[in-house]
Amino acid sequence: MIVDCAAYEGGRRREGELSLERAGEAASERGAFVWLGVVEPTEAEFQAIAAEFGLHELAVEDAVRAHQRPKVEEYDEFLHVVLKTARYVDPEEVIEVGEVSVFVAPSFVITVRHGDFDLAPVRHRLERRPDLLEEGPGAVLYAIADHLVDRYLEAAHGFDEDVREVELQVFGEGQNPTERIYKLEREVLEFQAATVPLGEELEDLCRRDYAVIPEPLHEYFRDVEDHLRRVSTRIENFRQLLDSALEANLTQVSMQQNEDMRKISAWVAIAAVPTMVAGIYGMNFEHMPELEWRFGYPLVLGIVLTACLYLYWRFKRSGWL
Amino acid sequence: MIVDCAAYEGGRRREGELSLERAGEAASERGAFVWLGVVEPTEAEFQAIAAEFGLHELAVEDAVRAHQRPKVEEYDEFLHVVLKTARYVDPEEVIEVGEVSVFVAPSFVITVRHGDFDLAPVRHRLERRPDLLEEGPGAVLYAIADHLVDRYLEAAHGFDEDVREVELQVFGEGQNPTERIYKLEREVLEFQAATVPLGEELEDLCRRDYAVIPEPLHEYFRDVEDHLRRVSTRIENFRQLLDSALEANLTQVSMQQNEDMRKISAWVAIAAVPTMVAGIYGMNFEHMPELEWRFGYPLVLGIVLTACLYLYWRFKRSGWL
Amino acid sequence: MIVDCAAYEGGRRREGELSLERAGEAASERGAFVWLGVVEPTEAEFQAIAAEFGLHELAVEDAVRAHQRPKVEEYDEFLHVVLKTARYVDPEEVIEVGEVSVFVAPSFVITVRHGDFDLAPVRHRLERRPDLLEEGPGAVLYAIADHLVDRYLEAAHGFDEDVREVELQVFGEGQNPTERIYKLEREVLEFQAATVPLGEELEDLCRRDYAVIPEPLHEYFRDVEDHLRRVSTRIENFRQLLDSALEANLTQVSMQQNEDMRKISAWVAIAAVPTMVAGIYGMNFEHMPELEWRFGYPLVLGIVLTACLYLYWRFKRSGWL
Amino acid sequence: MIVDCAAYEGGRRREGELSLERAGEAASERGAFVWLGVVEPTEAEFQAIAAEFGLHELAVEDAVRAHQRPKVEEYDEFLHVVLKTARYVDPEEVIEVGEVSVFVAPSFVITVRHGDFDLAPVRHRLERRPDLLEEGPGAVLYAIADHLVDRYLEAAHGFDEDVREVELQVFGEGQNPTERIYKLEREVLEFQAATVPLGEELEDLCRRDYAVIPEPLHEYFRDVEDHLRRVSTRIENFRQLLDSALEANLTQVSMQQNEDMRKISAWVAIAAVPTMVAGIYGMNFEHMPELEWRFGYPLVLGIVLTACLYLYWRFKRSGWL
Amino acid sequence: MIVDCAAYEGGRRREGELSLERAGEAASERGAFVWLGVVEPTEAEFQAIAAEFGLHELAVEDAVRAHQRPKVEEYDEFLHVVLKTARYVDPEEVIEVGEVSVFVAPSFVITVRHGDFDLAPVRHRLERRPDLLEEGPGAVLYAIADHLVDRYLEAAHGFDEDVREVELQVFGEGQNPTERIYKLEREVLEFQAATVPLGEELEDLCRRDYAVIPEPLHEYFRDVEDHLRRVSTRIENFRQLLDSALEANLTQVSMQQNEDMRKISAWVAIAAVPTMVAGIYGMNFEHMPELEWRFGYPLVLGIVLTACLYLYWRFKRSGWL
Repeated sequence: MIVDCAAYEGGRRREGELSLERAGEAASERGAFVWLGVVEPTEAEFQAIAAEFGLHELAVEDAVRAHQRPKVEEYDEFLHVVLKTARYVDPEEVIEVGEVSVFVAPSFVITVRHGDFDLAPVRHRLERRPDLLEEGPGAVLYAIADHLVDRYLEAAHGFDEDVREVELQVFGEGQNPTERIYKLEREVLEFQAATVPLGEELEDLCRRDYAVIPEPLHEYFRDVEDHLRRVSTRIENFRQLLDSALEANLTQVSMQQNEDMRKISAWVAIAAVPTMVAGIYGMNFEHMPELEWRFGYPLVLGIVLTACLYLYWRFKRSGWL
Repeated sequence: MIVDCAAYEGGRRREGELSLERAGEAASERGAFVWLGVVEPTEAEFQAIAAEFGLHELAVEDAVRAHQRPKVEEYDEFLHVVLKTARYVDPEEVIEVGEVSVFVAPSFVITVRHGDFDLAPVRHRLERRPDLLEEGPGAVLYAIADHLVDRYLEAAHGFDEDVREVELQVFGEGQNPTERIYKLEREVLEFQAATVPLGEELEDLCRRDYAVIPEPLHEYFRDVEDHLRRVSTRIENFRQLLDSALEANLTQVSMQQNEDMRKISAWVAIAAVPTMVAGIYGMNFEHMPELEWRFGYPLVLGIVLTACLYLYWRFKRSGWL
Repeated sequence: MIVDCAAYEGGRRREGELSLERAGEAASERGAFVWLGVVEPTEAEFQAIAAEFGLHELAVEDAVRAHQRPKVEEYDEFLHVVLKTARYVDPEEVIEVGEVSVFVAPSFVITVRHGDFDLAPVRHRLERRPDLLEEGPGAVLYAIADHLVDRYLEAAHGFDEDVREVELQVFGEGQNPTERIYKLEREVLEFQAATVPLGEELEDLCRRDYAVIPEPLHEYFRDVEDHLRRVSTRIENFRQLLDSALEANLTQVSMQQNEDMRKISAWVAIAAVPTMVAGIYGMNFEHMPELEWRFGYPLVLGIVLTACLYLYWRFKRSGWL
Repeated sequence: MIVDCAAYEGGRRREGELSLERAGEAASERGAFVWLGVVEPTEAEFQAIAAEFGLHELAVEDAVRAHQRPKVEEYDEFLHVVLKTARYVDPEEVIEVGEVSVFVAPSFVITVRHGDFDLAPVRHRLERRPDLLEEGPGAVLYAIADHLVDRYLEAAHGFDEDVREVELQVFGEGQNPTERIYKLEREVLEFQAATVPLGEELEDLCRRDYAVIPEPLHEYFRDVEDHLRRVSTRIENFRQLLDSALEANLTQVSMQQNEDMRKISAWVAIAAVPTMVAGIYGMNFEHMPELEWRFGYPLVLGIVLTACLYLYWRFKRSGWL
Repeated sequence: MIVDCAAYEGGRRREGELSLERAGEAASERGAFVWLGVVEPTEAEFQAIAAEFGLHELAVEDAVRAHQRPKVEEYDEFLHVVLKTARYVDPEEVIEVGEVSVFVAPSFVITVRHGDFDLAPVRHRLERRPDLLEEGPGAVLYAIADHLVDRYLEAAHGFDEDVREVELQVFGEGQNPTERIYKLEREVLEFQAATVPLGEELEDLCRRDYAVIPEPLHEYFRDVEDHLRRVSTRIENFRQLLDSALEANLTQVSMQQNEDMRKISAWVAIAAVPTMVAGIYGMNFEHMPELEWRFGYPLVLGIVLTACLYLYWRFKRSGWL
């Protein structure tokens, strides 16, 4: 589905939306370029666009099927860039990954979006920056990449908070965060797969001399790349922290087990005293003088109670209870 | 065993199958190439083919013996490419690895297959694409590589499902998935050894200028390489996840142990109360006034029962029972 | 906020502080350069400075927002270097990270500081080294980098002491250093993210020929880089040691658990002897000759006591008690 | 000790063994080369050989002392290649590492063997391949490298079988394979140190243009390198598998412990029933009506037995027994 | 403190020790060079030397302060090489690290030693090798590097023995080697930090064309580098082995715990039999026929004893006792 199609000239948007045919014509005018925004196109829909703009069969396949890696592919007449969108959904603690395919040529830029994600704000923000728009379709690519990588930083922030919560659980009481740690690790891996490969590709974008990325844009792409590296470092750190949290958690579980065992044992030991003493005075010997004492029974009860209290006090002091 | 042998010219298959001698002749005609398909040849069979097409002794050895790494080897007159086939057999959770050796020269392509795997569909699909076939034997290599790497993606999908099942087992109850996790790890390693080295080799295929891979095919091979990288990333993630699952599993086992220990101890503590009280009233002191009370016995029974119920309630509340 | 602004000529500071406008003028004189020190500027403040000195929009953004990675970015007319400050706060065992942005051009150097950190000592020390100051703004960059990396070494020293304390806890008694180990690991990771990337960037600074870094300064920057590498190696070792400490700690916990269990069991075994014997002589058989013996009771008590002492001695000897 | 010394010309061995002096002369004839085989030479023995053939002092030292890394060292007039031999001794599960030093010059090849390993079969096999021998001393180097790397593959096969046995032990019953896993890991590391560095060195051998390795041999060395890479991949996988086996084993031990603990506890619980009931009817209250019932005793025995059987059945059902 | 200062000419030492001033003069003669040996100099002492030989301020600082990384730094007129000395002190199982700074110029070599280590033997050995000494100051650098790396090999040997001892402890009985393993790991990391970075630097020394390292010395330095690589490989393996030993140790501890628990439980089960039976015959039912039997008491004792022995035999057979 085509969601927006407009021609840009000298940094400004020409009035009105264009039909696909008109877009093709506009793209062939000098000094102007067309920005065509498409959402989850069917194969047939995108075939029509590809025919109009002369896109390569393989790029078409990629754009329609989604589930690509982030990449920058150079074709003879255009550049095909695949970017992943990433959104951290906090209540479920999952990372939602979408995809934007961008076809950049000197006279057009086609953006193909898959997943629940809106490119309209990017377009509006860019339309307020004629100095950038003047640099042509490359500026559109920059604006999208910049926007997406800022979203990565937000997602990383969301992870950060959950990692800190998990830490509190690991070193707090009464919870078993093992499953949560594991699930977070899974999401971090997915986030990493969606974002990190883009780094190399962006570096390439600046270093090689692509006609569609004029020199003044290089610094802008370098800036995006720099933000992406911060994301990469943080992701790597999340993995490290979650790994350590998993192991620390195991230690805490063992520690807890030991404490429970000591507590149990302490009570068992305390209960063993009256049982043992009672056993002794339950023997049936004929000659057991204590049994005949007038205050034998309360005396024994008192001794037992004292012994129990003494044990309780010792266990308390040594931290077993 | 030769399974299919045909000559192709101008993107189309010439009528009829060729004998080995006729194939040699056809390969020497201009503008035509021969595609010879062989399955698990004996040394003698393949010696005959090698003699006909002038293959190098070492390549022959590799083709007959199988168990090679994926590789691209350049000889003076031909290219020898070894590709691994991979199929995930779900019920047994094993990866079945086979091998296809492809000898590509400007005038012929020989495919040698080892293992339970059919190349006929690749041939049929390619025969419906004269535009690709026109590029010569390199197109055959592409078609096979493309087909195999798509199978890798399917295998990765199979792994994915089993990894998710294992996760349910780890965090579910009553099962010990340790052995399953370990076995999956073993298979993932085998899958990795069979597929990942191909990446580098494919990259090489595009970067160097091989006569048998004309330029229009570069984008196709790059596409295959790209799919392969997705497989690599997923395999790497499987390894990470299985590693973490192994450790999470250990924690869960310790956790379970602690819970069992607490439950047992709680019951032992409850049982200790009547034993202790009964011991006390089993003592043989002459002067134990309670023993002579009319309702001493039911009173003690009641007290004991109340104490036991109180303990039960407390353990229930603190989660030990 | 501008904290200091002065012109330097021939290795010496000219008298008096300059206003922003005068600074711009001074920067355009030959043979002189201006050093402008800013602390946590607002966007508006820094826009004024950027306009005066012609800084790029993206660099401005970075300077105002902080939270950048360490980096060296070349713009057409100046170099933008981001350095992280790191201070180890020992009582809390956290690493406090700040940031200094340095804009270096042949005729000016602007330092933008974020966080609780003072650059005045650097300025004073450098003003006592006219031989370095003569090399121009690059010397200021060197002086700051040198100062910061020396702070890293101090921070690493602080970590070192805490790692050694943690070791004593792991192999000492009665403490659970798991949380401390984990927290230290988190701080080490943050320290690493703040410092290690600088290494590559510094290397670059010497290898490429930047106009603002004259050749005589190369050896100085190489010296800073070398110190940084020592920091990197130590950080890497901290991570290794903390990883091992986490695992060693788990082993110690298990070990402790085993010892506690043995101790408990030993006492249970000792208590089981009188209980068992008392049970036997508590039986109500009519014909139990021992019960009628005159010294049956003290004899049994003596035997029980002897058995208990014997067990105690054996457990003591085998290390269970 | 010199074990064999012969001159080769045009791919064939000249009749008779040569003395050291005659070997030196033969090496100076055109179109011929000498192959001198030495076994664990003393310093003096090898000094004589070095003097005859002009070997460098450092190479001599290496050849006599053994315990080198695999390496290829280029000297002005010859190439010094150190190769490790590896044999897996299955009953002891150790890897036996030896060493072959090969000095290759255009007119001679000297092989120095350390350890229990026979090069004679290599010589005999090569003497049946005049086409290879014609390429000169480089062919001897190839024949040895090829032979050794094939031995590596055999050793890897031996490891493979033991790793599979260890897996059966980990997931089987009643054994503690921890020590075996650890020892295997040690041997794998030794195997790796002996073989993997050779890979890089071999790659070098083909890429650089050494006079003693004529072009037709390149494909042969590439073949050896390829086999070596398969060994490397398998070694890496062994390490991974043994690491995972160590962790899986720990989980199995914990699992076993939990099962044992449950079993013990179940029996303790069953035994607690009669003890508790007997305690109650052992109390000395004057008014305990049950005590006077005619069938009180068998009734209580029956109830206790029923309760025990019921517990046994429940524990059986829940898998604790 | 200057410990030795002499001039060398044509591979031989000139008679007599030189004062610092005379050394400066001698260094300016053609064909001669001066070797100045200094031990832990004060800043003032070394300033004098630096002034005499024209050393750079930064190099002076490094030489006086020690605690550098191993490195090779090229200054305009000399090369500054920092080497670490390493000695394994076996009883304490610590690695003692010192430092040697070497300043190499065409006409002088200054060695600055920090730590308990003697360079005199190196000087004496080198003075017996005029062929090497003739190559100039580079030969001195070689001699020192060679000597130090041989010490590394000895240190690695010392580690090897302790690692093997630790293994015996892990799989032996009654010891807890956790702390020892951890401490060894710490020392291995320190050893690694002191030695491994030298590898790269040495490689550099041969590859670049330094005037002070004439070509004939290249093979000698390559030899040192090769020995260093063996050290690196062994260190890496120590780390691997100690990591695995730590984990194996944990498993052994768990295993031991399980065995102890089974042993304890077996005895508890055996003791439960007499307690239970005695409890039953301690009940006060009026109608318990067994109590009146003449041989009831010895019969019950016999039955209990038989049951205990039977249990003992079963536990023995199943390995619990």
